[in-house]
Amino acid sequence: MKKLEMLYEGKAKRVYKTDDVTKYWIEYKDDATAFNGEKKGSIHDKGIVNNKMSALLFKVVEASGVPTHFESLVNDREQIVKAVKILPLEVIVRNVAAGSLAKRLGLEEGYTMNETVLEFCYKDDALGDPMINEYHIAAMNFASKDQVALIKTYALKVNEILKAYFMDKGLNLIDFKLEFGDYNGEVILADEISPDTCRLWDSQTHKKMDKDRFRRDLGDVESTYQEVLERLTEGSTHA
Amino acid sequence: MKKLEMLYEGKAKRVYKTDDVTKYWIEYKDDATAFNGEKKGSIHDKGIVNNKMSALLFKVVEASGVPTHFESLVNDREQIVKAVKILPLEVIVRNVAAGSLAKRLGLEEGYTMNETVLEFCYKDDALGDPMINEYHIAAMNFASKDQVALIKTYALKVNEILKAYFMDKGLNLIDFKLEFGDYNGEVILADEISPDTCRLWDSQTHKKMDKDRFRRDLGDVESTYQEVLERLTEGSTHA
Ligand SMILES: Nc1ncnc2c1ncn2[C@@H]1O[C@H](COP(=O)(O)OP(=O)(O)O)[C@@H](O)[C@H]1O
Ligand SMILES: Nc1ncnc2c1ncn2[C@@H]1O[C@H](COP(=O)(O)OP(=O)(O)O)[C@@H](O)[C@H]1O
Ligand SMILES: [Mg+2]
Ligand SMILES: [Mg+2]
Repeated sequence: MKKLEMLYEGKAKRVYKTDDVTKYWIEYKDDATAFNGEKKGSIHDKGIVNNKMSALLFKVVEASGVPTHFESLVNDREQIVKAVKILPLEVIVRNVAAGSLAKRLGLEEGYTMNETVLEFCYKDDALGDPMINEYHIAAMNFASKDQVALIKTYALKVNEILKAYFMDKGLNLIDFKLEFGDYNGEVILADEISPDTCRLWDSQTHKKMDKDRFRRDLGDVESTYQEVLERLTEGSTHA
Repeated sequence: MKKLEMLYEGKAKRVYKTDDVTKYWIEYKDDATAFNGEKKGSIHDKGIVNNKMSALLFKVVEASGVPTHFESLVNDREQIVKAVKILPLEVIVRNVAAGSLAKRLGLEEGYTMNETVLEFCYKDDALGDPMINEYHIAAMNFASKDQVALIKTYALKVNEILKAYFMDKGLNLIDFKLEFGDYNGEVILADEISPDTCRLWDSQTHKKMDKDRFRRDLGDVESTYQEVLERLTEGSTHA
């Protein structure tokens, strides 16, 4: 496969066309942003961690029956994916209150909720990715009712798969963000699954093992990204 | 019935106990607030308009099969209602984008949406009544799933009833906020239905006939409240 011209550059990845119109070539960057782009920086070798971790987790998720865009790894920072039309939704799944939810509802970070929470945001940087609900999605034609129903089923299934998977690596899955795309009329999981898009707390110490180390200047940023990848790849059990 | 001690005073009403433990005595004030209490003022005789209008509309709604707290008018500013345990939810129904929704989604005010939008907010002044969804309601035990299902059905039914009713008076129902309460295990419509809680635009001129005149300093505040009440009570058709 040939890497052709860049299609778009996001905050964390560059997307290139390939000589196969059904595939994109994604390059993971070290660039890090937070608070809707207000805070900017770089995390050394984050691109490598997120590329490898996403590949690994897309395979895990796909094996459990959730279709994903992942095709193959090219090298440390690049992977081939199915070219989808991204739905303008950020799908957030939460097991434990943290971040914007803790703030919005006045909850202590770490408060474990009675039930899993699923949220939709309208993916629009200029508007700050505002939270919306299924009525807004229908009223604005962001996705069809069938797509929304599938997305909810997939997102909750990904949560069950990843919760168990991370637990085995000594990590609690607090929350995460997914993006879905339309691939020839089918809804499939796209974008990435990484410490940029998941909150992961060490099961024993509750140390934050994710992008909150960058967002909140907690230190050990690079080494934490590395450690998460090591835990996922070394295969041993931390639980 | 005897008016006993005040139970609580809100931004727009005072609630009193009565000698019947199943009933409260509600007094509508002229006090007006906006932007979560940041803007404060008074609208002469608003209490009279909102008391009478709420009574009238609760009767209309009840006649169409949605149970309400309304019992009887006492005088111009006071009414007797069923004493409920208010569910900590603001239920917003929107036919046309305006206010916070227009802002959140970057829409022109007046944009007519494809479908009716229903939103839930957590009724908590300190948190600024944040928007939530049904997962948050379940996770936080704000209401049971059965209660939420009923609230949605009732809110959408109230919308159909009031849209038609206001249209007959030459008013477009843009959006409105409802509160529901638990009355012996039954969900019933409570609080008020007034120009404080509905956006109403004149069908011909699109003049704002509601609390936005106060919020946005548009002038004619008192006279507009009076006109809305007159339109509803004079019985003639403006459509
Ligand atoms: N399989 C795919 N096909 C097309 N676009 C994709 C795919 N996976 C991810 N994208 C999109 O690639 C863009 C670049 O990613 P990223 O740098 O994370 O962007 P952002 O700044 O929006 O977070 C995003 O718009 C993302 O939705
Ligand atoms: N039938 C009822 N039984 C008990 N409380 C009620 C009833 N109807 C309305 N209330 C409550 O009365 C309080 C006073 O109303 P209001 O002045 O509008 O308060 P707020 O400042 O919360 O808007 C509110 O908490 C409202 O939810
Ligand atoms: Mg991204
Ligand atoms: Mg009120």
